[in-house]
Amino acid sequence: MILEDGRPRFEPNYADPAADGECVIRLSLGGICATDLELVAGYMDYRGVLGHEWVGVVETSPDPEWIGQRVVGDINCPCLVCPTCLDGRSNHCPNRTVFGILGRDGAFSDRFRLPVHCLHRVPDEVADEAAVFVEPLAAACRILQQIQVQPSDRVLVLGVGRLGQLCARVLALTGAQVFACSRNPARLGMLPSEITPVNTQDLAGARFDIVVDCTGSHAGLEQATAAVRPGGTIVLKTTVHGGIAPNPNPWVVDEITVVGSRCGPFPEALACLREGMVDPTALITGRFPIEEGVTALKAAAEREHVKVLLDPVLESSDA
Amino acid sequence: MILEDGRPRFEPNYADPAADGECVIRLSLGGICATDLELVAGYMDYRGVLGHEWVGVVETSPDPEWIGQRVVGDINCPCLVCPTCLDGRSNHCPNRTVFGILGRDGAFSDRFRLPVHCLHRVPDEVADEAAVFVEPLAAACRILQQIQVQPSDRVLVLGVGRLGQLCARVLALTGAQVFACSRNPARLGMLPSEITPVNTQDLAGARFDIVVDCTGSHAGLEQATAAVRPGGTIVLKTTVHGGIAPNPNPWVVDEITVVGSRCGPFPEALACLREGMVDPTALITGRFPIEEGVTALKAAAEREHVKVLLDPVLESSDA
Repeated sequence: MILEDGRPRFEPNYADPAADGECVIRLSLGGICATDLELVAGYMDYRGVLGHEWVGVVETSPDPEWIGQRVVGDINCPCLVCPTCLDGRSNHCPNRTVFGILGRDGAFSDRFRLPVHCLHRVPDEVADEAAVFVEPLAAACRILQQIQVQPSDRVLVLGVGRLGQLCARVLALTGAQVFACSRNPARLGMLPSEITPVNTQDLAGARFDIVVDCTGSHAGLEQATAAVRPGGTIVLKTTVHGGIAPNPNPWVVDEITVVGSRCGPFPEALACLREGMVDPTALITGRFPIEEGVTALKAAAEREHVKVLLDPVLESSDA
Repeated sequence: MILEDGRPRFEPNYADPAADGECVIRLSLGGICATDLELVAGYMDYRGVLGHEWVGVVETSPDPEWIGQRVVGDINCPCLVCPTCLDGRSNHCPNRTVFGILGRDGAFSDRFRLPVHCLHRVPDEVADEAAVFVEPLAAACRILQQIQVQPSDRVLVLGVGRLGQLCARVLALTGAQVFACSRNPARLGMLPSEITPVNTQDLAGARFDIVVDCTGSHAGLEQATAAVRPGGTIVLKTTVHGGIAPNPNPWVVDEITVVGSRCGPFPEALACLREGMVDPTALITGRFPIEEGVTALKAAAEREHVKVLLDPVLESSDA
């Protein structure tokens, strides 16, 4: 599914030939992310094949040991030789391409390519339907690398769409009391029992030690500022095309810390799935053949959907 | 100096009688802060006696040991009994008054009152002209309580007015390489030799591990966002009446942390002065009799001034 001039359309196989050090991967399943919808709306001015959540099988590789392996892949493709990479921060490499987001075609085609060093083998215990969540689950795990969550903390996740659902589940692993807030009762109903659902209108006056903005909305950061206690922490996951921020005075007066949080560790996410600590498969609400990708993208933007998958094996008539 | 209807005017002695647990203090020196100028501009909708930077002598006290002592005082007057106070975060007590800023008259009069538990004795080695800087110096020391600064870090202080000058000096104590940036060559010239002055126009493209916004300007947070490296930290000291924030997308994509920072520890600030680690007295650019407070306030808003003092002993004709 290629994005050109702001309009996505299906292309069965758009992948260029693999360059040095790169594999060709056959798509098993793809997942549509809020970022894909933002890219279509103009975020990052991206043009190319969409898709950065996927699981697939390696068809060709410069290292033959990878051939036939079931894999997922880091979306950041760093240069590995610049000072930032050598300093251990390759996710922030200034020369990086980002798979399906910045300067590199993504996964929503029959086949695609990625450097060997981005790949992670999927354990046999993890089904494709779970493995396709590794990228956003890693983004949820990233929070625990950035801030310390205490079992005594009260944590609020604002927005329980695709990413919020995963963030709430990962944060609950810390023993903290996790609340998740939405205007959408159906999404609140998808939360596992260890997470307390809160309707947005019942939030007034409540204050939390940590608030995670997964709203994907311009209003999220302001809502988070209202909901965090003085001295507390806001984790900012939302990127919106043409984003806006609220008056920052409360962050100073109340000594709030705002932590921008993006991509996370694939090994931790794979471990969560392998050990059954997080089961994301209940979040799958739609499954479309890949040639109906444009329809799938529209479905993913609707309120009744959480995670919409693209399946190259599914026949159009099954949809 | 009382602020009414947005206009400050001089009152020689506005203090109410001391309440239970409070002292009456005679002003020795007062210091005008950017926050005073913001309060006059409408910030916090404050009405009352201005002034929260001061050194004085205790005249009456419920605890006679304080009488005659030279003191400075925490500006936050917490209730000491609410959950936030009992949790050790009394600076964020929701019931607090803030001296000269919120619900409590400040220091710019002959005498004023403050609870005993807010007072700190000034060591004999510290002159009044240094002690009057304890409150903003404590706010600079606060940064080192909130973030870890490594000797290998490159730190940029944006804005070298009243607070920026002190922040740069305190940050330099860590061994980090500290740069300070301003459009005002005279202020850059006041920096001690261990701090590297940078003209604002020479900043383009440079990236720092830590950026401290002391601009006191709406544009400061956006400048800080442009100057911090991916994965770096912005310390936000600026509060501006009707503040605005930039597009927060870069904070997510580059995983920036924004740390709001307000009041700090008086014991650490007094120790810095007592040990000669920081000498702020070179920042004094004006000294006015207190009855010329309104004139002093106007002077403090001018570019050629850094710290303007109010001196109750100085005769008007000396000004």
